[in-house]
Amino acid sequence: MTASADRLAALRAELARRGVAGFLVPRADEHQGEYVPPSAERLAWLTGFTGSAGLAAVLPDRAAIFVDGRYTLQARDQVDSALYEQRHISDAPASAWIAQNLKSGEALGYDPRLHTLPEIDRYSAAAAKAGGTLRPLDSNPLDAVWKDRPAPPMAPVVPHELRFAGKSSADKRREIASALADDKIDAAVLTAPDSIAWLLNIRGGDVPYTPLPLSFALLRADGSVELFIDAAKLAPGTAAFLGNDVAVSPPARFGAALESLKGKRVLADPGSASAWVFDRLKTGGAAIHRAADPCLLPKACKNAAELDGTRAAHRRDGAALTRFLAWLSDAAPQGKLREIAVSDRLEELRSGGENFRGLSFPTISGAGSNGAIVHYRAAPETEKSLLPGTFYLVDSGAQYLDGTTDVTRTVAIGEPSAEMRDRFTRVLKGHIALATCKFPKGTTGSQLDALARHALWQVGLDFDHGTGHGVGSYLSVHEGPQRISKIGNSQPLLPGMIVSDEPGYYRAGAYGIRIENLVAVVPVENEAAERPLYGFETLTLAPIDRNAIEPALMTDEEINWLDSYHARVRDTLTPLVDTATAQWLATVTEPLA
Amino acid sequence: MTASADRLAALRAELARRGVAGFLVPRADEHQGEYVPPSAERLAWLTGFTGSAGLAAVLPDRAAIFVDGRYTLQARDQVDSALYEQRHISDAPASAWIAQNLKSGEALGYDPRLHTLPEIDRYSAAAAKAGGTLRPLDSNPLDAVWKDRPAPPMAPVVPHELRFAGKSSADKRREIASALADDKIDAAVLTAPDSIAWLLNIRGGDVPYTPLPLSFALLRADGSVELFIDAAKLAPGTAAFLGNDVAVSPPARFGAALESLKGKRVLADPGSASAWVFDRLKTGGAAIHRAADPCLLPKACKNAAELDGTRAAHRRDGAALTRFLAWLSDAAPQGKLREIAVSDRLEELRSGGENFRGLSFPTISGAGSNGAIVHYRAAPETEKSLLPGTFYLVDSGAQYLDGTTDVTRTVAIGEPSAEMRDRFTRVLKGHIALATCKFPKGTTGSQLDALARHALWQVGLDFDHGTGHGVGSYLSVHEGPQRISKIGNSQPLLPGMIVSDEPGYYRAGAYGIRIENLVAVVPVENEAAERPLYGFETLTLAPIDRNAIEPALMTDEEINWLDSYHARVRDTLTPLVDTATAQWLATVTEPLA
Repeated sequence: MTASADRLAALRAELARRGVAGFLVPRADEHQGEYVPPSAERLAWLTGFTGSAGLAAVLPDRAAIFVDGRYTLQARDQVDSALYEQRHISDAPASAWIAQNLKSGEALGYDPRLHTLPEIDRYSAAAAKAGGTLRPLDSNPLDAVWKDRPAPPMAPVVPHELRFAGKSSADKRREIASALADDKIDAAVLTAPDSIAWLLNIRGGDVPYTPLPLSFALLRADGSVELFIDAAKLAPGTAAFLGNDVAVSPPARFGAALESLKGKRVLADPGSASAWVFDRLKTGGAAIHRAADPCLLPKACKNAAELDGTRAAHRRDGAALTRFLAWLSDAAPQGKLREIAVSDRLEELRSGGENFRGLSFPTISGAGSNGAIVHYRAAPETEKSLLPGTFYLVDSGAQYLDGTTDVTRTVAIGEPSAEMRDRFTRVLKGHIALATCKFPKGTTGSQLDALARHALWQVGLDFDHGTGHGVGSYLSVHEGPQRISKIGNSQPLLPGMIVSDEPGYYRAGAYGIRIENLVAVVPVENEAAERPLYGFETLTLAPIDRNAIEPALMTDEEINWLDSYHARVRDTLTPLVDTATAQWLATVTEPLA
Repeated sequence: MTASADRLAALRAELARRGVAGFLVPRADEHQGEYVPPSAERLAWLTGFTGSAGLAAVLPDRAAIFVDGRYTLQARDQVDSALYEQRHISDAPASAWIAQNLKSGEALGYDPRLHTLPEIDRYSAAAAKAGGTLRPLDSNPLDAVWKDRPAPPMAPVVPHELRFAGKSSADKRREIASALADDKIDAAVLTAPDSIAWLLNIRGGDVPYTPLPLSFALLRADGSVELFIDAAKLAPGTAAFLGNDVAVSPPARFGAALESLKGKRVLADPGSASAWVFDRLKTGGAAIHRAADPCLLPKACKNAAELDGTRAAHRRDGAALTRFLAWLSDAAPQGKLREIAVSDRLEELRSGGENFRGLSFPTISGAGSNGAIVHYRAAPETEKSLLPGTFYLVDSGAQYLDGTTDVTRTVAIGEPSAEMRDRFTRVLKGHIALATCKFPKGTTGSQLDALARHALWQVGLDFDHGTGHGVGSYLSVHEGPQRISKIGNSQPLLPGMIVSDEPGYYRAGAYGIRIENLVAVVPVENEAAERPLYGFETLTLAPIDRNAIEPALMTDEEINWLDSYHARVRDTLTPLVDTATAQWLATVTEPLA
C-alpha cells in the first residue's frame, strides 16, 4: 500500500468516526493566499499533488482531484489515479462531481476555515442536488490523521522601516479607520496577511517567496487593532514598534473576538475571509457588512517613498539581471547550459544585492519548447539545454526591503527563424503599446488590455494569460485589486499602482516568448488635456534582445521607444556593473536602426 | 392652473380613491423599447417632458422627475418646477427619493406592466426603507384620468418578404424551438416587438422610426407561436402568411395564457419582460427560467440575404447623403443655411430612394456649438446658421425594406482652426483603428473600445458616449446584445453582427465632431492564424471631409485606408448620382497625400 493509499484510508476511517461520508481538501489555508506554509500543505500530504491550486473531494468509495489546465500533466504524474479520478477544475468542477457522487442522506464535511462563502454556496447547492448536505466540521479531520504534520510557521516578525513604508502604521490606521467611521462601520476583519503586514508596517517569513507573517486582525473605527498572532513570533522590539494601539492576542482568541461583536457593524471581505469568519460573526450577532478589504486599495497605491524604493530595487535587480544576460550571451553559444544551472546563476547574482531578501516566486527558466509552457518550473527530469536556434525564456523576480521585482526576458540563442522574429516583434509591439499609452482617470486595466494584443491579433495570434497583475511593495508579487486582462475588472488604474506589462506568445512544442517589465501608474501633464491624464513609468531596467527583433515591423515611434529605453538602461546600469558587462551592455543597447 | 397642475391633481385624486399614497410613471411602455406610441406617452402627458427616458414619482404633497444628463436642460424647460423637483436619474435616483419621502405605512403604487423586475426590486427596497410598501395596481390610475388618451396604434402588419429576411419564419422558429427543447424549456415569453417581428418575418408601424408591430408572443418548444395582437391590425394576407403554426389571439388573452402554463418550464427575459409577466407566470404555477430573449442573438447575426440587403441599402443611402453633401458644399459658404432646412433637404433626398420607408431616428443636425450637444434635436428656437469657420454635424439614418442605416458626417464650413483639425483627425484615427482591427473569436466590443479612443487619450481628450451599438435589419437602429463601449459587455462579436463605429469629440459651447460608419463583423482569412479571426467590413459609403484633416497626424496606413475607402465610395456611388454630384465626389475623394 502506498503512502497516499494509507493516508486516504486513515482519513476515511476518521470521517466514519465523525459520522460524515466525505470531506473536501482545498489547497488553500486560512488566509486564501498564493503560498501556504508546510503545516497547511494538506492537499500535497494527502494526494501528492504540489501545485499552487487544486481541491480533493473524498467520499467512502471514490475520490477525485480537481486542478486547472496548468497542472493537468503534473497532477497526472504526482497523484495515484487508482485512488483519485482527475478532473479539470472549471470544465468538470467539484460541484458537478459532488452532485453526481454524494448519496442521498449523506453529509459531506468541510473545514470552514479553508473555504470562502461563495465556494461553500456552490458546494452546498451541489450536495442538496444529490439529496445530501454539506456540513462544517469543528476541527479538521485530516489534521487528526496527519501524524507528523509540521508545526505552524514561527518566522520572526520584524518592523518594516518607515524609510521603506513611507507612512507610519498610525497614519494608515487613522485614515482607514476614519473611512470606516464615515461608513458607520465599527470594525473590519482582516484575514489577508499582506493587508495586515501593510497596515502595521511589519514583515515576516511564514510562507515562501513573500515576507508575510500569518495572522488575523480586527481594525476598529477608532484606529486601534487587535492582532491575533503567537506573541513568541514577534522579534525583540516589534511589540514596542507596534505600540499601545495594537493589542496582541493569541490566534485561538480570534473566534471569541469575532463572536463578541454583538450589534456592531462589522466589515468582512467575502473574497478573502473564510466561511468560518462569517459563521462566527453571525453566531455572535454582529451586523455583517460585506465589502472589499479596506487595505486593498491604499496598499495598491504606492506612496512616494515606496515608489522611490522600488526604483532603487529595480536598479539593483536590473544590474543583476544584466550581468546574468551578459554571462549568458558569452556562455550559451557553446550549447552546454541547462535550465536549472542557468537559473541558479541568476539567483546567485541577485542574492548579492543590497536589501535582497529572497526570490519573489520560483523562477521560470524555459529553454526551447519548455518556454511554451506558461507556468513551467524546471526539474532535473524536464530541463533542456539552451540550443542554437531556440529562445530561452526566463521569468524571475526578487524581494528587496525596498521593493518587489518581476521581470521576463526572452533571449535568442544563436539565430532565430524569421517566424520567431516576427512573433517576438509582435509581442514587443504589444508591450510598447501598453507602456506608452496614456489614458484618462477612470480607465481600468481591462480597457487597456487589447493594446497589448493588437499586433498579435492582426495575424490571428493571441496569448492565454492576463497582460498584467498588480505587484506589492516588499509584499506579494501578485496583488489586487487592479489588473490588465481580458476579464472585466471595474477597478480604475490609479497613480502609484504598480502593474506588470507582460504580453507573450507561445507555440506549443516549439518556443515561448514573453517580455515583461513592471510599470507604475503616474499622472501625465498635457496642456490640452481636459481630463486628469495618466500613463506608465517603466520601472524594470534590462536590455531587450535586439537579435530577436524584425525592425521592418516596427514603427518609428516604437523604435524610438526601444532606443530611448535602452539608453536609459545603459546610463543607469553601467555604473552598477563590472567592466565586461558594461562593454556588453553598450553593444546590446545601441540604437536599433 | 396649468394643464400639468390639473393632471397631477386629477392623478392624486384617483390615487386617493384607490388607497395608495403615490404612483410611479416611467417613460417605458409594456415593451421596454426605445420608442413608444402616443397612447403610452404617459410621462409626457403628465409632466410635459418629451425625452426618450425618464421617470416621475408622485406622492400626496410632492413629486419629482428623474432624467439623465442628456435631458437636464430639456426637462427644466418642459416641466413645471413648482410641481416637480428635478433629479439626475443615476446621481440622485428615484430609489433614494422614495426612501426619503414616502411616509411610514404608505403604499406607493406602480403599474407592473411598465417596469422590469430589477426596477421593482430597487423601488421595493426603497419603500421598505421608508417603512412603506410598493404595491402593484391592477389597472393604471393615470389612464383613468387621461380623458383624451389616444387609442392604441393600429398600423397594418405586413409580411417581411423572404428576399429581405433571408430565412423563413418556420425555419427560425424550428431552430429556436429546438434550442429551447435542448434546454428542457417548454415555452419562451416574447415581449420585445423587434424579436417578434424578426421571428415571424412581419413588420408594422406602431411606433415612430422603427417598423414594429406592438405585440406579445409565446413560442413553444414545438415551434408553434401564439401571437397576441388585435387581428384587425393584420393586413390582408398576413394571417395566411403567418400560417397554421402561428395562432393569433387578442392581446387581452395574454395574461390568461401566461397563467395557463402550470408546471411548464417557461423562459422569460428579466431585462425586457415586465414584472407583470413574471407575476402572471408565478400565479399560474409555471417554473420560470430567467434567461436572455432567445431571438436576441440570432437576430443580431445577420444572414447572407440580410447582409446583401444592407449593402444595397447603404449604396442608396450613401448616394442620397453624397448628393446632400455636394449640395451643402455649394450652398453653405453663403452662410444662409439653417439646421432644420438642411436636415429637411437630406430627408427629401433620401425619401426618393427605392425601398425607403422613413427615417430610422430623428436627425441630429447641429451647427457650431449645437454639434457639441450629443443628443441635439434642432428646433426653431435653438437652430443656428451654418457659418464659416465652424463644423456642421449631421447624424441621420433611414429605414429601407432591405436594411437600416445610421451615419454621421462632420463637415467643415469654410476653414477649420488648427485645433479643430487636430481633434477631427484624432477622431478619424480612432474610427480607422476600430474599422481596421482584426480580433480573435471570443472578443467583445468592450475589449475593442479603447482602440477608438486611443488617439484622443494621448492628449487627454475623450468622449462620453459608447463607441458602437448594434443595428437591426429593417428593424431597430439600436439593438443588442453586442456593443462597443467602456461599459463591460460579455457578448463576443460574431460574424453577421452590424455595429456602428462612431467615436467623437465635443467641445462644449464650440463644436462637435463625430465620424460614424456602420460595419459588419466578417471572418478574416490569414494563413498564420491559429484562431478563428474576425474583422469589420465597412457598410456606410459617403466621403469623409478631407478639409478637416491634419495629414501630419496620420500614419501611412491610416492615409491608405482613407484613400482606398474614398476610392470605393467614388467607384460605387458615381453611377448612382447626378453629374454635378459625381464631379464633386471625384474631387473630394482624391488621395489625401
